[in-house]
Amino acid sequence: MSRIDGRTPDQLRPVTIERGWSKHAEGSVLVSFGDTKVLCTATVTEGVPRWRKGSGEGWVTAEYSMLPRATNTRGDRESVRGKIGGRTHEISRLIGRSLRAVIDYKALGENTVVLDCDVLQADGGTRTAAITGAYVALADAIAWAQAKKIVKPGRKPLTGTVCAISVGIVGSVPLLDLRYEEDVRADTDMNVVCTGDGRFVEVQGTAEAAPFDRRELGALLDLATAGCENLTALQLEALARTLGE
Amino acid sequence: MSRIDGRTPDQLRPVTIERGWSKHAEGSVLVSFGDTKVLCTATVTEGVPRWRKGSGEGWVTAEYSMLPRATNTRGDRESVRGKIGGRTHEISRLIGRSLRAVIDYKALGENTVVLDCDVLQADGGTRTAAITGAYVALADAIAWAQAKKIVKPGRKPLTGTVCAISVGIVGSVPLLDLRYEEDVRADTDMNVVCTGDGRFVEVQGTAEAAPFDRRELGALLDLATAGCENLTALQLEALARTLGE
Amino acid sequence: MSRIDGRTPDQLRPVTIERGWSKHAEGSVLVSFGDTKVLCTATVTEGVPRWRKGSGEGWVTAEYSMLPRATNTRGDRESVRGKIGGRTHEISRLIGRSLRAVIDYKALGENTVVLDCDVLQADGGTRTAAITGAYVALADAIAWAQAKKIVKPGRKPLTGTVCAISVGIVGSVPLLDLRYEEDVRADTDMNVVCTGDGRFVEVQGTAEAAPFDRRELGALLDLATAGCENLTALQLEALARTLGE
Amino acid sequence: MSRIDGRTPDQLRPVTIERGWSKHAEGSVLVSFGDTKVLCTATVTEGVPRWRKGSGEGWVTAEYSMLPRATNTRGDRESVRGKIGGRTHEISRLIGRSLRAVIDYKALGENTVVLDCDVLQADGGTRTAAITGAYVALADAIAWAQAKKIVKPGRKPLTGTVCAISVGIVGSVPLLDLRYEEDVRADTDMNVVCTGDGRFVEVQGTAEAAPFDRRELGALLDLATAGCENLTALQLEALARTLGE
Amino acid sequence: MSRIDGRTPDQLRPVTIERGWSKHAEGSVLVSFGDTKVLCTATVTEGVPRWRKGSGEGWVTAEYSMLPRATNTRGDRESVRGKIGGRTHEISRLIGRSLRAVIDYKALGENTVVLDCDVLQADGGTRTAAITGAYVALADAIAWAQAKKIVKPGRKPLTGTVCAISVGIVGSVPLLDLRYEEDVRADTDMNVVCTGDGRFVEVQGTAEAAPFDRRELGALLDLATAGCENLTALQLEALARTLGE
Amino acid sequence: MSRIDGRTPDQLRPVTIERGWSKHAEGSVLVSFGDTKVLCTATVTEGVPRWRKGSGEGWVTAEYSMLPRATNTRGDRESVRGKIGGRTHEISRLIGRSLRAVIDYKALGENTVVLDCDVLQADGGTRTAAITGAYVALADAIAWAQAKKIVKPGRKPLTGTVCAISVGIVGSVPLLDLRYEEDVRADTDMNVVCTGDGRFVEVQGTAEAAPFDRRELGALLDLATAGCENLTALQLEALARTLGE
Repeated sequence: MSRIDGRTPDQLRPVTIERGWSKHAEGSVLVSFGDTKVLCTATVTEGVPRWRKGSGEGWVTAEYSMLPRATNTRGDRESVRGKIGGRTHEISRLIGRSLRAVIDYKALGENTVVLDCDVLQADGGTRTAAITGAYVALADAIAWAQAKKIVKPGRKPLTGTVCAISVGIVGSVPLLDLRYEEDVRADTDMNVVCTGDGRFVEVQGTAEAAPFDRRELGALLDLATAGCENLTALQLEALARTLGE
Repeated sequence: MSRIDGRTPDQLRPVTIERGWSKHAEGSVLVSFGDTKVLCTATVTEGVPRWRKGSGEGWVTAEYSMLPRATNTRGDRESVRGKIGGRTHEISRLIGRSLRAVIDYKALGENTVVLDCDVLQADGGTRTAAITGAYVALADAIAWAQAKKIVKPGRKPLTGTVCAISVGIVGSVPLLDLRYEEDVRADTDMNVVCTGDGRFVEVQGTAEAAPFDRRELGALLDLATAGCENLTALQLEALARTLGE
Repeated sequence: MSRIDGRTPDQLRPVTIERGWSKHAEGSVLVSFGDTKVLCTATVTEGVPRWRKGSGEGWVTAEYSMLPRATNTRGDRESVRGKIGGRTHEISRLIGRSLRAVIDYKALGENTVVLDCDVLQADGGTRTAAITGAYVALADAIAWAQAKKIVKPGRKPLTGTVCAISVGIVGSVPLLDLRYEEDVRADTDMNVVCTGDGRFVEVQGTAEAAPFDRRELGALLDLATAGCENLTALQLEALARTLGE
Repeated sequence: MSRIDGRTPDQLRPVTIERGWSKHAEGSVLVSFGDTKVLCTATVTEGVPRWRKGSGEGWVTAEYSMLPRATNTRGDRESVRGKIGGRTHEISRLIGRSLRAVIDYKALGENTVVLDCDVLQADGGTRTAAITGAYVALADAIAWAQAKKIVKPGRKPLTGTVCAISVGIVGSVPLLDLRYEEDVRADTDMNVVCTGDGRFVEVQGTAEAAPFDRRELGALLDLATAGCENLTALQLEALARTLGE
Repeated sequence: MSRIDGRTPDQLRPVTIERGWSKHAEGSVLVSFGDTKVLCTATVTEGVPRWRKGSGEGWVTAEYSMLPRATNTRGDRESVRGKIGGRTHEISRLIGRSLRAVIDYKALGENTVVLDCDVLQADGGTRTAAITGAYVALADAIAWAQAKKIVKPGRKPLTGTVCAISVGIVGSVPLLDLRYEEDVRADTDMNVVCTGDGRFVEVQGTAEAAPFDRRELGALLDLATAGCENLTALQLEALARTLGE
Repeated sequence: MSRIDGRTPDQLRPVTIERGWSKHAEGSVLVSFGDTKVLCTATVTEGVPRWRKGSGEGWVTAEYSMLPRATNTRGDRESVRGKIGGRTHEISRLIGRSLRAVIDYKALGENTVVLDCDVLQADGGTRTAAITGAYVALADAIAWAQAKKIVKPGRKPLTGTVCAISVGIVGSVPLLDLRYEEDVRADTDMNVVCTGDGRFVEVQGTAEAAPFDRRELGALLDLATAGCENLTALQLEALARTLGE
């Protein structure tokens, strides 16, 4: 069985990580996983939310959103409807938790980084692309804050790297990095967030059509772990480039 | 190491499932996992949401909420704030997906069941108690709909049973069914939704303090699977009782 | 003419007042007037709303809500609709005013008590049950605050007791404590809030089907006054029991 | 004791009822009770709300609002805050119920009348002025609908007249038609809605500072009944004038 | 060609400016342009919005709204819909900008003036009537603030006068001060805000049916400039009268 | 005097119009005016809003929004605040009106085109870039609808072209196409929307710091007319390219 775009089951789509996309943000990345394109900007502000003041610790949070026509049919704007939907809430929270997993709050000091992940075009895997790109934007923003001495000299707020990938079982076959058309046909769908050293930050598996057993779960985790290893390499490679090249 | 309430690591809290709690709802259960108490009511209405009309298929959905003083400090009402928070959205969606995993939409016909899960008192594990109790309320509501011929004779909308439990790693020890005080100290926290035949409907593991590895994930799934087996037995036992006893 | 449940016109439904229902709240009562069940919790917080700061005086307020399936047909959640309905607002305000009628703000000091009255099951008279139960929760919360010295020693924030009952004219007969089925058939409907010494805090009479005259108003007030006398006795009896029995 | 404006305790403020204020509305009245000025417009539309369709019966409803600077200090607009306050809800509902007390829904047919009562200037008694003025606007709107044959020939949707007045106990003295400065000093405050034949549609008494007894309640009702008799005469007088004079 | 009300193309409707309409507001004007009637109140408060604190400069802002039945068919209240519409936002912002054009913030000191412009009856030109009336209310409010020494002695916060008029091309003829029926038939519609010395504060021309050329634009500006000259005279005349006459 | 980026007063920034940016939308353009970048997508749906049904005429509307970090400091998301701000409303309405100026509703038939204009990066002139880009996206979407026979054969819904540019007076010098830093220093700011044949669709001039006279208005219109001529040529050039090149 071959996939719609000819990939092997364990193959990522072409991934690009374009740093410095925005002239305003402290960190910004246009990340693409195939036709999925997400603009991730990182905003550094001094100070923390009220409930954290005086703690000496920083905060990192995220907001995810989709442009109305990022998808095949146009969705209403959440600003027009006057409220944020459950899916948006869920993904924003996931991105925030994932990035906080590699943050040392003490080292960050009482500063806040907000990651805005806006999906410009969607073709499956928007949340995993968002996490993967947001990490790079976060790294650039923290480097900026270190250069500006907003983060105290010698402090290293980042304790590691983090990336994410989707996996799923489509017609009994475990596949890596699902496109939209694969995603809708998946029996089981899983999003896995990993650190660069191969441990798990989040594992979210959902039986869409049929419950899954321990063996299937294992196969999906194998795929995801290997996929994240590749993504980690791509993140490091992107960060190794001089900004502006 | 012993747990704050003297349980062994693989022991559930006392679980009670009180059916027929409400005189109005088609199905209703007051479920308790220790001090966590959730009132689950199932409402059957003929007809389905607009996007499903004419499909011949039914729909099952859920809404989760917490009373303001279900917790140790009072939380603002979401109705007063004018919007639903991300956590509430996330859990409502999880409960709905979990119950839909055991529903045959065709057999249900164009009818809708809404599960309302209102937490009267919280002490950890409110979402897992909600799923476990909601299943029993759903089963009663479907039996009611069958008796009323709202579901066509001979049709079996329920394809199995479903329940859920939380597990977590606290001080390196994997524990089953965390109380609130254990939950806040957990390094890793996982909610697992299982069918009665031991397969997974949802696996949601989150690294709260430290990323987890494959071995730890395995230990947590072992605990959860055994816990769900016990919950399934308690659900069946509750459903075997004559309503009103 | 006999009533649907065999009561005499001036007879209350069975009333139960279960104190200490919640392990978290400073005061909590599950009150039932027949099949109407309301969970009332009292939350004490130090400090007062902004407009009252520096006054040396405390504040007492209330929020009323109904679970979606507390009634015979399911109602939409106000949190989902994103706004609070007029009826909810009206009753929340009534409960707050009623309880404030027996509060000495100076004696309370700059502390706030919030009464949450959540209707778990409705069968008429939810607002009167809420007021009656909330008073008992308030009394427990104030006793707690006195024990904790949050209220200064020797201060008595409660100046009396308060309870409430509904009355109405159904088929020309004035009736006490209407059930839902009586309520919908009533020509006139009145809610009366009394202090323990038999004076009025609120009198809200509404002609549902036909305007009422002075004589009918008098008959309803007679019934209500006697009903409140009974409720006062039940409140005092409940408060005389040791908490936890 | 004399009142701030020299009135006797049982004296109304100067009341004016200016019909035909608006060139657009089917009925419109600028009513003033002293310095309280309320613009009441009645809008007739064919058809009824969804829940009433096919019943053959009409509907009457009301919306009350205050201009931001109708009062001594500016209040935020409810449109800007994005939600309607409890007080506004409460009064809108009261006005609607009061007017419906004199409506024969069958005779009205499947038509709706909306009464908009906008307070242009407030000095106590805005809700009672609104009810009194809205009745006259309603009467004009119904006459218009009869002339246009929207109401079927021979049908009389109005079964009587309705008006309202406030009363209160200020410094032990029962007073009629309180101005704002009297209202804030009142121990007890009552709004009474009467039909033209002297019966009660609503009696809403509230102990602001001290509970009231049966004798005080009686004195207030006496005052209100007499006041409403006067208002009824003023309403009939206004309606007897040819529109446009 | 004569206009529906017999005016010449360059003729204003009868304009009245009634000062001191409200007993509460620091400045208040009931302005009418023919059947268009707008109540403008000016509220002075000490202090400025947060973003302006410590600047030593004041602020002037405006809120525009229409009563639901100001127009021929009833519009929903924005408070009931829970949000402010685009047209309301746009006009509120226009009024605020127009008035700020004649304000010396330094001279005003850290004080805020809010102009509320509520349309009681609409017949075209509500925004231009609002600006014209609001200026007069603002002038009265500033005089009040000067008398109360809220504005420091010798300071002149007003640097000039401002008024506004609508113009449009209807059936190839440029017309001044359009009534509603003219407005809906206009090919081009323009609102012009002028200072008393004949310069422009805002020029907003919109092609409703057909784009317009430079010559047509010129003709409209000629009309508007002359109309504003007349309005300026009427404003000054109104302000020259002793308040209360 | 030279401009910050070395342009002459009557010179546009580099303008790029990238068609076919999105794989989902019927028309899509990434337009840039210097560092201002706006993604414009056009969505065609069969059918029209309720108020237009059965008219045989189509509808075109627009929604404008800015990503939170499109600007130098991060702005709150309107979806998170739960309401749309006045500026957003105003610009969305302007874009919609501008595009409708070149639409023949009858030729479009009962179809709707929604233009989404999302500012990815802002540096002044976002609304004029949005209009200019949206026209091209609209042209592509209409060509698509013609090819799909959603628009009837032989019908030409587009009656011309439309584009927009900002002009302003900075330090007494009239300038074309202001960058953000010029915009904030402008005394007068004007947005001009022109058709391809050089007539005006919208002229919105605002005195930011000082009122402007007729001569200044003339100079600004001269600049804008010439600028729009250039933009029209760029639009036609972009549309002449084969999509996908």
